[in-house]
Amino acid sequence: MEQKLLPEIRARYACREFLSDAVSSGDTAAVLEAGRLAPSGFGLEPWRFVVVADDPTRRAMAQACFGQIPVVTAPVLVAIMAMVEQLHPGSDYVRARFETEARGQPVDAIHAAYQAFYRADTIAAWAVGQCNFAAAHMLLQATHLGLASCPIGGFDSAQVARVLRLPLGEIPALVIAFGHCAHSQPERLRKSSVT
Amino acid sequence: MEQKLLPEIRARYACREFLSDAVSSGDTAAVLEAGRLAPSGFGLEPWRFVVVADDPTRRAMAQACFGQIPVVTAPVLVAIMAMVEQLHPGSDYVRARFETEARGQPVDAIHAAYQAFYRADTIAAWAVGQCNFAAAHMLLQATHLGLASCPIGGFDSAQVARVLRLPLGEIPALVIAFGHCAHSQPERLRKSSVT
Repeated sequence: MEQKLLPEIRARYACREFLSDAVSSGDTAAVLEAGRLAPSGFGLEPWRFVVVADDPTRRAMAQACFGQIPVVTAPVLVAIMAMVEQLHPGSDYVRARFETEARGQPVDAIHAAYQAFYRADTIAAWAVGQCNFAAAHMLLQATHLGLASCPIGGFDSAQVARVLRLPLGEIPALVIAFGHCAHSQPERLRKSSVT
Repeated sequence: MEQKLLPEIRARYACREFLSDAVSSGDTAAVLEAGRLAPSGFGLEPWRFVVVADDPTRRAMAQACFGQIPVVTAPVLVAIMAMVEQLHPGSDYVRARFETEARGQPVDAIHAAYQAFYRADTIAAWAVGQCNFAAAHMLLQATHLGLASCPIGGFDSAQVARVLRLPLGEIPALVIAFGHCAHSQPERLRKSSVT
């Protein structure tokens, strides 16, 4: 079993404190690209990525994340925003994605399926959940580059929106801290498999 | 950039039709293990995986998934269930996870943070979204094994629950079809990067 596992899945862990060593811009770009290539429901890719590497914004983000040590210490943060407003059926954004996804085939069926799926009161939570596909890609990509990472779901959403000057209709889904870890991979603790 | 990417991220795609070739039980086990090792908010791992490989259940699942070709043709399906009822703060399940996650440290802080986070009316959508971490791991693990995959978010939730005899308090989050693909990797279509 162990031998069959993707090495990055075996090696990834949540780093609780980062060293101050910088992350190269090439590595950051590869992490973003990994997120960009993630799958998403209806092919809607309802996300936007914001890189935070400058000191004042990192400090403001650390505060918005309640001073959690990984955010305080990491040299680079990537905030994943869920696009909500643009997910309205028939929006320019949705039309453009479906045209692309259809690869030249008729798009009526996917528009109808999405119209049946869409509910204004649940779409935000759905979009936030979709961002976890991009996040998982980024975490494994960072591992592939020899970087440590820590996903952070606990933050003051309104404060993050202010710090990053988010447009209306976008909400912060997840903040990921990247860098070099100050500790080694801890023992992995998981509930046992139930299938 | 391309050279820096995790090869499995570059190679993964949504297979639209599978060959009838079987998937070995060892490969299926490795896919489940990859899902098990995924990160989750508060370390709650709010998921359960069900493997569907027998013909009658696969047929019933295909119907519950509106006859979508990947589900009809795949030799193996993995359904990811979101655990909802057991996520109530103070449940035995939550207590057990937090005890493990705390690694012997006091658990009061995480219980307090979770209590502040938990809302009965939003926890189901949150748990469903968490399952995408496990799903992304499974999709990349399948690619690592030379298998194709297709995540399916569109299904009749109540019908899936009946077919798989889900306990109350669990809801289907995602169905993933696995197997050998009847077509090659299509051109990748993504919106351009915006950071």
